[in-house]
Amino acid sequence: MKLLIANALIIPMTKEGLYLRGDIGIDGKHIVFVGTGDPSFRADRIIDGSSFLVMPSLVNAHTHLSMGLMRNYKDSLPTLQAWLAEIFPIEDKLTAEDVLLASRLGIIELIQGGCTLFTDMYFEPQATAQAVIEGGIRGNIGVTLFGALEENKARVEERETLLAPYLAEAEGRLTLNVAPHAIYTCTQETYQYAASWAREHGRVLHTHLSETKKEVDDCIKETGMTPPSYLAKTGVLQDVKSMLAHCVHLSEEDIKLLETFDTTIVHNPSSNLKLSSGIAPIASYLKAGIPVALGTDGASSNNNLNMFEEMHIASLLGRVVETDAEKLTPYQVLEMATKRGAEAMGVGDKVGTLEAGKEADLLLIDLKKSHLTPLNDPFSALVYAAQSSDIDTVFCQGKILMEQRKVRTLDENKVMDDVQKSWANILKR
Amino acid sequence: MKLLIANALIIPMTKEGLYLRGDIGIDGKHIVFVGTGDPSFRADRIIDGSSFLVMPSLVNAHTHLSMGLMRNYKDSLPTLQAWLAEIFPIEDKLTAEDVLLASRLGIIELIQGGCTLFTDMYFEPQATAQAVIEGGIRGNIGVTLFGALEENKARVEERETLLAPYLAEAEGRLTLNVAPHAIYTCTQETYQYAASWAREHGRVLHTHLSETKKEVDDCIKETGMTPPSYLAKTGVLQDVKSMLAHCVHLSEEDIKLLETFDTTIVHNPSSNLKLSSGIAPIASYLKAGIPVALGTDGASSNNNLNMFEEMHIASLLGRVVETDAEKLTPYQVLEMATKRGAEAMGVGDKVGTLEAGKEADLLLIDLKKSHLTPLNDPFSALVYAAQSSDIDTVFCQGKILMEQRKVRTLDENKVMDDVQKSWANILKR
Ligand SMILES: [Zn+2]
Ligand SMILES: [Zn+2]
Repeated sequence: MKLLIANALIIPMTKEGLYLRGDIGIDGKHIVFVGTGDPSFRADRIIDGSSFLVMPSLVNAHTHLSMGLMRNYKDSLPTLQAWLAEIFPIEDKLTAEDVLLASRLGIIELIQGGCTLFTDMYFEPQATAQAVIEGGIRGNIGVTLFGALEENKARVEERETLLAPYLAEAEGRLTLNVAPHAIYTCTQETYQYAASWAREHGRVLHTHLSETKKEVDDCIKETGMTPPSYLAKTGVLQDVKSMLAHCVHLSEEDIKLLETFDTTIVHNPSSNLKLSSGIAPIASYLKAGIPVALGTDGASSNNNLNMFEEMHIASLLGRVVETDAEKLTPYQVLEMATKRGAEAMGVGDKVGTLEAGKEADLLLIDLKKSHLTPLNDPFSALVYAAQSSDIDTVFCQGKILMEQRKVRTLDENKVMDDVQKSWANILKR
Repeated sequence: MKLLIANALIIPMTKEGLYLRGDIGIDGKHIVFVGTGDPSFRADRIIDGSSFLVMPSLVNAHTHLSMGLMRNYKDSLPTLQAWLAEIFPIEDKLTAEDVLLASRLGIIELIQGGCTLFTDMYFEPQATAQAVIEGGIRGNIGVTLFGALEENKARVEERETLLAPYLAEAEGRLTLNVAPHAIYTCTQETYQYAASWAREHGRVLHTHLSETKKEVDDCIKETGMTPPSYLAKTGVLQDVKSMLAHCVHLSEEDIKLLETFDTTIVHNPSSNLKLSSGIAPIASYLKAGIPVALGTDGASSNNNLNMFEEMHIASLLGRVVETDAEKLTPYQVLEMATKRGAEAMGVGDKVGTLEAGKEADLLLIDLKKSHLTPLNDPFSALVYAAQSSDIDTVFCQGKILMEQRKVRTLDENKVMDDVQKSWANILKR
């Protein structure tokens, strides 16, 4: 199948401030040209792009997909700790079937929000992997660890076996990460084991870090070190690709230290506000040379998986910092929401920008909207004015997952009904 | 015309935490019952409300509707002052026709975002009044003042004459406010004249106040007083209903002082972040007993007129304050976005809640959405998870202004085209 998107406003995300009007050719899974068309290209289908903005699909670099079940549930509690005390007992009751249904719902929500790649951390990862395959998107699925070394060794072995068939089936759209939950729920040995497994298998290590002031204070009290120093001194960050979610509370030394590792900080501004954790000073991390990606966290602390909202909130928060020089720009936020996430997961060579040779993960955004008129600066328009409901069409690996706002790969009404029933049932258990 | 909305989830906004499943009857312009139906009520049309949440329409308590023209335009400047220096020369070129076209676009955007009442401050208010009448919504239109007394006396007289026919035609949906722009653009005599005119005519005085640290510092330097003290000591706030937009930087004394007047603070969180003005500590104002309403400010510093986003951002910011006791709740934010705005404008007896006898300004929100599944707490769902695109139907004064997302009163495509042409033309002038 050869497809031509003709005469669109294109934001390739290959160069700061670059946008152009032109064509995009897609042949099977791949982009074959961006901008100037190839006269020999014979398309099976031509999409008139004249009222569309085309950009790379969004990348959600930190979520817990199945926590959509607990959306808007007991969510006015004062702190992360108080909220987790409500959430953990519910999670103890979840089955693989619950996780499958909730993952399907989450994937529908991701597609509707223009996201085709996400990093997950949750239980029953094989159920989420199955939903990824059904939904046609990409997943970087966590093998999630809690507690002490021995139980986690068993857990990793079991998960590898369960996940193997899905990895084989996903046509390259599935990768794994190893996800020790947090320094307050995993032992040092668990982290060291996770790091060595990640190194051995070429996987990413994904964890929550320095999310709250309490976490940092407790870590200093117990180890004499800040959370980043603790992971660095115990060898966990050495020679491994890592994704550190939150990093709201970093010291100057923490920032200098993290810059020396192959680490991406994942900014989750909505969740950090909602759980009263604070506002991460992202511009200063970028200035120090640390890559930053963007995530929604779980829908239970957000309360959705909307990356357009996340870009908007990150952009606005990025303008109330100390100095003029450190304000986040719309382009930086778009980078965080696309290529930085893909790079963090080790798939930056395949997706995250629009370039010939890359796989075709892209969005058609309908510009004929009152709130996008006049458009003026398209980068400002995307981060400050646009809504996820402006996305008309979503491509992943050259396949259309949503068109005219209708998701093609999963049955939205059936999945919503299934999740309602599953949640009612969980509350009764 | 009698209309029944049957079996809906209703949030009347009459009591903290109250929601119910039931019917709403509308007879002409008015709500005749909420909750339990009247058996003698014979509806001409019945809307199945079983998948809808019904709530009062939203109220945007501070905007500059026509600034939608300058949306996403030169908006990455470091401060309010730097940005105004770009905007003022453009505004000097605007004609009443430009304002009419931009107001139509703004009203379409307000309706699509579920807002049927707004407070405006801009030039050529008669053009905005015309668009209000065409769009079928409600407007609290500002007679905007800049500079010294004499020019403003002439301005007020001229505007009253221009606006009179629109006030007569609007079936009670149009009110006026007098809007001295700010203490750094109007003289003391202008403010005093505005206040006496507001008292005499029973209008609201509407102004920007304590928006930036610089404004406060300059005021103290020039007058020895903070902006609220300056307005209080010069008699401006005495015996007048006032709406003070922003109030980002108030001292403890300012808060105590404002509590003694008939004043509503209008919170504009997106604009305050975008212009790097800061984060207003709204929970502390509410705790001190000052009413707070919500606004978007102009689309050029937002960059849209989306009150769902504004509720979302206000809610999130309201959770990163010092003490647990002062976190904003979802219900408080919904009050700010509905009844508090109506009360501030002096129309709280007509709109702002769903009650028998009030005029029928209400929204049908489609709950069959992935990001609203499961719903759990409907107040959390509205402020944290919902999107303005979830609004299916908008009523104002008993009339349907939008149904199935299609605006009925104005031609969206034509208005967008007109505004594109008008803006291209303005840039050439
Ligand atoms: Zn998380
Ligand atoms: Zn304003």
